[in-house]
Amino acid sequence: MDKADLKPDDIAGLGIGAPGAIDFDHGLVLDAPNLGWVDYPLQKELGKRLDFPVVIDNDVNVGAWGEYKAGAGKGFDEQMSVFIGTGVGAGLILDGKLYHGTGYTAGEIGHMVVGGRGTLGHRTVEDLASRTSMVRRIRHMIEYNHKSVVTDIVGGDLNKIRSKVLAQAFEQGDPLVVEIVEDAARYIGMAVANAVTLLSLPCVVLGGGASEAMGKPWLDLVRTNFEQHVFPDKLKDTKIVLSELEDNAGPIGAALLAADTLG
Amino acid sequence: MDKADLKPDDIAGLGIGAPGAIDFDHGLVLDAPNLGWVDYPLQKELGKRLDFPVVIDNDVNVGAWGEYKAGAGKGFDEQMSVFIGTGVGAGLILDGKLYHGTGYTAGEIGHMVVGGRGTLGHRTVEDLASRTSMVRRIRHMIEYNHKSVVTDIVGGDLNKIRSKVLAQAFEQGDPLVVEIVEDAARYIGMAVANAVTLLSLPCVVLGGGASEAMGKPWLDLVRTNFEQHVFPDKLKDTKIVLSELEDNAGPIGAALLAADTLG
Repeated sequence: MDKADLKPDDIAGLGIGAPGAIDFDHGLVLDAPNLGWVDYPLQKELGKRLDFPVVIDNDVNVGAWGEYKAGAGKGFDEQMSVFIGTGVGAGLILDGKLYHGTGYTAGEIGHMVVGGRGTLGHRTVEDLASRTSMVRRIRHMIEYNHKSVVTDIVGGDLNKIRSKVLAQAFEQGDPLVVEIVEDAARYIGMAVANAVTLLSLPCVVLGGGASEAMGKPWLDLVRTNFEQHVFPDKLKDTKIVLSELEDNAGPIGAALLAADTLG
Repeated sequence: MDKADLKPDDIAGLGIGAPGAIDFDHGLVLDAPNLGWVDYPLQKELGKRLDFPVVIDNDVNVGAWGEYKAGAGKGFDEQMSVFIGTGVGAGLILDGKLYHGTGYTAGEIGHMVVGGRGTLGHRTVEDLASRTSMVRRIRHMIEYNHKSVVTDIVGGDLNKIRSKVLAQAFEQGDPLVVEIVEDAARYIGMAVANAVTLLSLPCVVLGGGASEAMGKPWLDLVRTNFEQHVFPDKLKDTKIVLSELEDNAGPIGAALLAADTLG
């Protein structure tokens, strides 16, 4: 408020995206392992300390709401935003509303099995296609003496492989990184196809650090694999686009969700 | 009407489940390859010939509606019914309504990729776990001189392997059939887990010829594999049950959908 030169009276409400399973209806963080919270009444606790109402939802869901209301997914009342970074998560908009599911954990696409013929640890979307998975495998291959420009980019420190390093090596056509990125795009494409096949969605937004860093060539790879696996053929027309709000999808989406919820 | 000793005046409406993509809102069969119909106005055409209103939906969807309203899924406003037979299809109930999706093809779980590491033709749920797939593999193995009680059950005619033959050989513990059924249950379990993980559903009904013939041992195998793959752990509590209406799910569901839609 200080930075924007605003007073509490200027604020109609606060929107927050929190990690974990969120009971949107009652403002509870049901389970956020990273924060150690179980059934924590975040909405109520913040409400006590602030002079305006608070709306909370899952961090991935608010990002999806941002892309729907003000980003790449504008105009589609049914859509999914998939964020690919440390993990892989999605937010679903169905019938113009965030879809939470009875257990409030809808959108966990990263835990969907796409490589069910693989051994445990190599079956889910996160196992096969998160940035964490790509980095782990690049590192593993380099440690087993495979050549890659990644070694030079990070000055020999393999702890420093981030999305931007991945993107730089991919753009330079480094064979090791290209193979691993193409492999990941394959499983993201299958997962997106699975969700679109199950829900008959007209629009999917791809976001998250890995998608932002690799941009259009990544989008194209995902789309090719999506088209190969979606059913029926008509759904090949589904719009698949990169996030427009990027890092701001969460904050903007949370603010808009508060505005839309508080009316 | 003759059989039930009813007159047109006794009938408030007719419900129909048709194959293919159905535009529920406008009563159109958009695309039914088996019937050769494209954008066929089934609701209107039947309405012309009958003295009462007609409601149409997809055949799998009306089955799911039946299980929701009068069968194994009663009481759960979010649920999925999966029918495993010649193919594998599902109907989704979200927020107490049939969910169709923007493209009207929601529920095509049989075309979901769960074995993405396999070659083309061995990747989707139908490839790996439909009755057709199980029968094809049993037949293939027998033709390659593997022993199975199936050969005796069908009197040597491998064209006669139906769900009941499968169930009988499975019940007798025939090693070939047990291995193939366990393998199929594994992929059905993964697919059900994928849908529940994505949609946070509290209830799944298993129906179709294969499920009905194999019954509880099949349900238990699917549940074991479901629990191994669903996320988060809390969703292991999801109720997974066999169809109660069996062959009547479609007709009963279609009639109830007409009643519920016409009010």
